[in-house]
Amino acid sequence: MRKVRATVEYDGTAYQGFQVQVNRPTIQGALEKALQSVTAESIRITSAGRTDAGVHARGQVVHFTTAWPHSLEVLERAWNALLPHDIAVRDLQQVSEDFHARFSASSREYRYTIYVGAVRSPLLARISHYHAEPLDVDAMSEAALALEGEHDFAAFGRAPWGDNTVRVVHRAQFQRQTEPLTGGELLFFDIEANAFLRRMVRLIVGTLLLVGKGTLSPAAFQEILLAGNLNHPIAAVVPAGLCLMRVNYNQR
Amino acid sequence: MRKVRATVEYDGTAYQGFQVQVNRPTIQGALEKALQSVTAESIRITSAGRTDAGVHARGQVVHFTTAWPHSLEVLERAWNALLPHDIAVRDLQQVSEDFHARFSASSREYRYTIYVGAVRSPLLARISHYHAEPLDVDAMSEAALALEGEHDFAAFGRAPWGDNTVRVVHRAQFQRQTEPLTGGELLFFDIEANAFLRRMVRLIVGTLLLVGKGTLSPAAFQEILLAGNLNHPIAAVVPAGLCLMRVNYNQR
Repeated sequence: MRKVRATVEYDGTAYQGFQVQVNRPTIQGALEKALQSVTAESIRITSAGRTDAGVHARGQVVHFTTAWPHSLEVLERAWNALLPHDIAVRDLQQVSEDFHARFSASSREYRYTIYVGAVRSPLLARISHYHAEPLDVDAMSEAALALEGEHDFAAFGRAPWGDNTVRVVHRAQFQRQTEPLTGGELLFFDIEANAFLRRMVRLIVGTLLLVGKGTLSPAAFQEILLAGNLNHPIAAVVPAGLCLMRVNYNQR
Repeated sequence: MRKVRATVEYDGTAYQGFQVQVNRPTIQGALEKALQSVTAESIRITSAGRTDAGVHARGQVVHFTTAWPHSLEVLERAWNALLPHDIAVRDLQQVSEDFHARFSASSREYRYTIYVGAVRSPLLARISHYHAEPLDVDAMSEAALALEGEHDFAAFGRAPWGDNTVRVVHRAQFQRQTEPLTGGELLFFDIEANAFLRRMVRLIVGTLLLVGKGTLSPAAFQEILLAGNLNHPIAAVVPAGLCLMRVNYNQR
């Protein structure tokens, strides 16, 4: 038996999230079904993070244990051949017995994409939140700065297990990209933390949008963070805009 | 009655091309159905170019004639509200009686996107052709240079009407963009011409891929162009990689 890690990319549009559910399409379910067909083993896959329904990933990480006797290149090719077109695995590596996709991870990087333009963009709809009116990105960037460092993030989600809602955010910043063809603008919100609460990125982005619209000041955003509860207004943001970009590990 | 032009963006994945067909989903059919619901008129739409099944557009241009009595801003909003999520219209403008979306166009710009990487990318699959092996992009760029200028392009398609296969290519060049997360690379082939033959961009890209693989030299590519017939090997390229980016007009 050997322990293997793999990087997974997926378009989450058609799935009910990562975690396996009976009779519903999930990323984990599709990965396990294809892997079991290839190996003829009953294999359970563990991921770095359970993304919600409709959320995408470019760099999800999973691990599993297998008796596969051939090379990992062959396993990768056979696995990809049986996976649906909206899921792919890459960079299969044998890892030590103490590697764990979730618990060994030192940080996760998410990107949330917002498209701002007079008219919605059909070619960006699967991967972004659409906002019609101009946003005050400077105010949003200022507010986002308050997220950096160690804080109790109870204002932006619930703990996935236990009660601890303290997290360390290493980076929370916006990048802007003009779309010359439409006159619109893409906003990328990149956030890296040691770990995330449930729905944390989408709750943060929903609240930052209120700052961008002028409904909340950056100072009021910081007060919400410090108050540490979910009793504050949040605009809904669609899962399509969210993507798990990368999971980082100190060890291999 | 007044003549109106509009820019159209669409994700062509679910459509049998632009041109209307009985009982099959088309871009023109969806545009006309929604516009007729809004205006209560029977309106026929004319486009700058009839894109094939599965081909996308960021800047298709159409025109139509309507008795719509209100502002074009209101028409744009109502039309978009009734269009499916994968089609949107923008920049509605009243134009003079002699404007014609196809015949007044001075040039069209297409982009073909190729993703090169060890593993296919699910998040790029809808908008790109996937190629697993590295490509000689320098050779492809050299070959593409031969396309620029006025040539008989009979080697790369049939005339959509009449017999004339002479076209003027203003620009045919590759741009490369590294994908740091996957170690792969995006190749953008941008081509602008006064007009295009049927399937011309996809036949050119399919032949340029043979140059990138080393099967054809840039000189052999030029010989195919000069020979002026379709009797040469072409690798198939998927419509998903193709996008009509912009249509240019001298007059308004």
